Amino acid sequence: MTHDGKKLTGLVAATFTPLTPKGEVNLSVIGQYIDFLVEKQGVRKIFVNGTTGESLSLSVDERKQLAEAWCQKGKGKLEDVIVHVGCSSLKDSQELARHAVEAGADGIAVISPTFFKPPNAASLRLFLQEVAAAAPALPFYYYHIPSMTGVHLLALDVVEGIEKVIPSFRGLKFSGSDLLDFGQCVSCSPGHWTHLYGMDEQLLAALAMGADGAVGSTYNYMGSTMNKVLCAFDKGDLEQARKLQFQMQEIILFAIKQGFNLAMNKQLMSEMSGISLGPPRLPLIPCDVTKAQVVVQKMYSVLGEQQ
Amino acid sequence: MTHDGKKLTGLVAATFTPLTPKGEVNLSVIGQYIDFLVEKQGVRKIFVNGTTGESLSLSVDERKQLAEAWCQKGKGKLEDVIVHVGCSSLKDSQELARHAVEAGADGIAVISPTFFKPPNAASLRLFLQEVAAAAPALPFYYYHIPSMTGVHLLALDVVEGIEKVIPSFRGLKFSGSDLLDFGQCVSCSPGHWTHLYGMDEQLLAALAMGADGAVGSTYNYMGSTMNKVLCAFDKGDLEQARKLQFQMQEIILFAIKQGFNLAMNKQLMSEMSGISLGPPRLPLIPCDVTKAQVVVQKMYSVLGEQQ
Amino acid sequence: MTHDGKKLTGLVAATFTPLTPKGEVNLSVIGQYIDFLVEKQGVRKIFVNGTTGESLSLSVDERKQLAEAWCQKGKGKLEDVIVHVGCSSLKDSQELARHAVEAGADGIAVISPTFFKPPNAASLRLFLQEVAAAAPALPFYYYHIPSMTGVHLLALDVVEGIEKVIPSFRGLKFSGSDLLDFGQCVSCSPGHWTHLYGMDEQLLAALAMGADGAVGSTYNYMGSTMNKVLCAFDKGDLEQARKLQFQMQEIILFAIKQGFNLAMNKQLMSEMSGISLGPPRLPLIPCDVTKAQVVVQKMYSVLGEQQ
Amino acid sequence: MTHDGKKLTGLVAATFTPLTPKGEVNLSVIGQYIDFLVEKQGVRKIFVNGTTGESLSLSVDERKQLAEAWCQKGKGKLEDVIVHVGCSSLKDSQELARHAVEAGADGIAVISPTFFKPPNAASLRLFLQEVAAAAPALPFYYYHIPSMTGVHLLALDVVEGIEKVIPSFRGLKFSGSDLLDFGQCVSCSPGHWTHLYGMDEQLLAALAMGADGAVGSTYNYMGSTMNKVLCAFDKGDLEQARKLQFQMQEIILFAIKQGFNLAMNKQLMSEMSGISLGPPRLPLIPCDVTKAQVVVQKMYSVLGEQQ
Repeated sequence: MTHDGKKLTGLVAATFTPLTPKGEVNLSVIGQYIDFLVEKQGVRKIFVNGTTGESLSLSVDERKQLAEAWCQKGKGKLEDVIVHVGCSSLKDSQELARHAVEAGADGIAVISPTFFKPPNAASLRLFLQEVAAAAPALPFYYYHIPSMTGVHLLALDVVEGIEKVIPSFRGLKFSGSDLLDFGQCVSCSPGHWTHLYGMDEQLLAALAMGADGAVGSTYNYMGSTMNKVLCAFDKGDLEQARKLQFQMQEIILFAIKQGFNLAMNKQLMSEMSGISLGPPRLPLIPCDVTKAQVVVQKMYSVLGEQQ
Repeated sequence: MTHDGKKLTGLVAATFTPLTPKGEVNLSVIGQYIDFLVEKQGVRKIFVNGTTGESLSLSVDERKQLAEAWCQKGKGKLEDVIVHVGCSSLKDSQELARHAVEAGADGIAVISPTFFKPPNAASLRLFLQEVAAAAPALPFYYYHIPSMTGVHLLALDVVEGIEKVIPSFRGLKFSGSDLLDFGQCVSCSPGHWTHLYGMDEQLLAALAMGADGAVGSTYNYMGSTMNKVLCAFDKGDLEQARKLQFQMQEIILFAIKQGFNLAMNKQLMSEMSGISLGPPRLPLIPCDVTKAQVVVQKMYSVLGEQQ
Repeated sequence: MTHDGKKLTGLVAATFTPLTPKGEVNLSVIGQYIDFLVEKQGVRKIFVNGTTGESLSLSVDERKQLAEAWCQKGKGKLEDVIVHVGCSSLKDSQELARHAVEAGADGIAVISPTFFKPPNAASLRLFLQEVAAAAPALPFYYYHIPSMTGVHLLALDVVEGIEKVIPSFRGLKFSGSDLLDFGQCVSCSPGHWTHLYGMDEQLLAALAMGADGAVGSTYNYMGSTMNKVLCAFDKGDLEQARKLQFQMQEIILFAIKQGFNLAMNKQLMSEMSGISLGPPRLPLIPCDVTKAQVVVQKMYSVLGEQQ
Repeated sequence: MTHDGKKLTGLVAATFTPLTPKGEVNLSVIGQYIDFLVEKQGVRKIFVNGTTGESLSLSVDERKQLAEAWCQKGKGKLEDVIVHVGCSSLKDSQELARHAVEAGADGIAVISPTFFKPPNAASLRLFLQEVAAAAPALPFYYYHIPSMTGVHLLALDVVEGIEKVIPSFRGLKFSGSDLLDFGQCVSCSPGHWTHLYGMDEQLLAALAMGADGAVGSTYNYMGSTMNKVLCAFDKGDLEQARKLQFQMQEIILFAIKQGFNLAMNKQLMSEMSGISLGPPRLPLIPCDVTKAQVVVQKMYSVLGEQQ
């Protein structure tokens, strides 16, 4: 794992945070988890302590333990470990950024604060800059997810001129449906930035608009299928890419009708991987196992058992 | 103009409603308008009395006059005239649907009522059914635009089983950014339905997801460019399609920063076509002409004077 | 019924529109309806063709018939008939305003257009002005209901200087929870304006902030109780006013848990009055009668059978 | 400062967090701050580390330092120090709750987590319960502020049966405009709970609905005026209470037109108290001092220099 300037592309799994049944961080299954990603899903890049990882429900100390464990267990197996260090408190984010260096992360990502919302793009950029300055040598990514943050600034405005204040800036995780904003980010940015799309269910659309790769939670257990979407797209076989994307959509829509949320998502990964990831942490509440299993059955029926 | 069962594809211009300076409907420029579309933009299909046409600001009688004029003047020049007949009142919609038959429309489209919102997909489908029944022989399209209607039902749920109750159903105008919903509409529908995408600035993404064509306001004056996007996409030249889409996005984003809205959009068309379309009707207020001209200059500088 | 300059105060019932079982306007029960209001509820003022009256689901012609019937049947029984003439089309609103004069209305009220939203307070005021000019001699009220219109302008900004452009302006129906805006409307307006509050379930709060009266749907069937709230408040007996308001809230909250909406509300009135008001019009769908009856039982158990 | 079971009533100032010009916590001015509240505003109760205190922008350690300082400096001067211990992480909230006991707080309050939103009232209650269990002897308050949290659960549903699981539960800080929900909280709760209203600009309305007191940021510098509102209300002099509330509203509305937000609010307190509270922390950005001074002038002109 080195951050040698190679652009981050392809599929990146946003990892779930394993908890014990009592809700404590469970580092012991991380090795297994990585093996599952690499061997069964063909996914060698991860994004840890993000939204999927329930980072905002964790203490700073827990996030450090997790970052260390993912980096350490990933050595020799994973190509990239991006550690999300965004917090509502700038101080905490800076502490986590410094820690990510020690932990051996390949990059850090930061989300906008959400309780107090930055009043404009410049203030958010200033916040990102202050975090980045705590780990100036690590590739830095802005994590854009307005549906969760409630911060409806254009990503394009946030990243405008950002390399002047964050020399380590390397791109975005764009988890939004505004493809005007996304397209202009792609169109206006230097070639060494990466544009990772974050709405798994419409990845193909973003590829058409120039996405370099994708970060998402479903790549934990449907990475194998979605790798085929990337592959078909690269070959110019749009029809095949669309067919696979539609299958994946059919599963997600089915899950939505069953009450898809982070709790169900986590349970789906437990079921698919055979690794017990435990419950989500409060204020989220565990997903009914039966419901998750119904979705797993749907997944098998749509994609075949090999998934 | 016949509705011979041929699927509606390609670019469809959502027309503006010409008004006199005093705000009365101005039918006299419709012939010129059609010539501009056909000769300068290469657009031979129109969607009249829609959102762009300020239909909800018009009286039933005005909408009838307009439908007649567009159909009559379009004879021999246009391939398709789709008349939007959606109203907040079912009675008015039915009256307009019946009138569209007489006027010689090639199809009708209906938006969801917005003041009183349908509580679920079934009630919206029932509303659509009651309108369609007033013009059973005309191809019927559902017009999905949640950002304007505030009705956040999945289009997929609305059109589920719809052909059983609306035998004339032929597809959707989908003006939304939820490409999971859009993709599943494409994936689950019979081959003779059409899927027309309605967010011009991200048309390429929708094409990748299987769109058959597009309905939009910018095709009034950037139809020529956007026809090239369709063309490049059809040839499998994604790079060229993306380049053109990005140019169009650059213009739209520039316009947004200038305060893009329906009033500016209408003024842009007046400037680009040389046809005076007049002000929008209250509660909208006219766009400052200078602002529109700045956007026009941007358009020329990005796309070249030939536009 | 004369509009002699007396300020409109007290309770005003926002009437439901009676429909036949097949959904046609049913004028035949309006006489009975008025008798019920006057005799059983002690309510002598009505607001017709408003939100409660499903006006936006009616044709212009239907609204005229209704305005005429309410005015005519109310003669000698009602003190005030305010006719709401707001439409999405300015032309239609003007036509209805002119008609209200002929029908003998005591005043007209206008809501903001909602599909195309006025971009600022000045443009909404301009819209209101154009409607008012069609019936310059009738007292004019602005109907403020942001939760339905999605127009989040301050009422205070809308009515600023409004008497200069609408000499017949006489006040507001304020159906919102922003009591800063409401309070400043009260504080800044001339004494001959009236401030009618429109969220029945928190009327007492608005009285404390200076409301002159109230317009609401629940006054159709809980007018008698709410008249006692007004009475207790006027006597300075806040404790009694609060006790009654809390009882009314208990009923409304119970109804909300049963799915309270306009359809249920209409059914509640049918049950309470014994007058069959029929179903709501599409896109609304009828309320399950059993559910409405459960709410009626709750009403009896909280307020006593005399209600 | 003892928590002897006396109900918390009257005005409670939600304190700002003093920072140095460089943005570090500045404990040195807390003594002065308390003196200003007690001597100039007649306010002897405070709510620290809340929204006004930018708690979500602080580290756990900083929040502890602040809690200690406010409690210690307040001894003998303040009647109540409520420490807000809500965090997005349950672990952090528990740690702060335990610390509040040691610090000598008179009570703790907890807001809903906001990034991951509790899916229903039961899950939020469970979260609150887990925090309360870390400080079982301290009076516990639920802090309801949907506009900031985006959690739109009824407070009534959250507090239903809450004393069974949180024996130390003593009431709510209700910062919302839904007075149906507020009224029913008052109506349905045992007499020893307190209902503190949190929208200062419409306090009078909440008093009419049964509020026991108020927590707010403006009581830092307009506490003296708002104490007069309480006093007038208690005497039954609604007219005087309304007059004063309207004056306060006039100032707030003026501030809103100048861009009122937490940054301006903090600057207003610096100006009014003469104590330098420093800038807000990122992602908030400092208020232009001139703008704050214009608001201060308005305050003087409306309320008189004695304020």
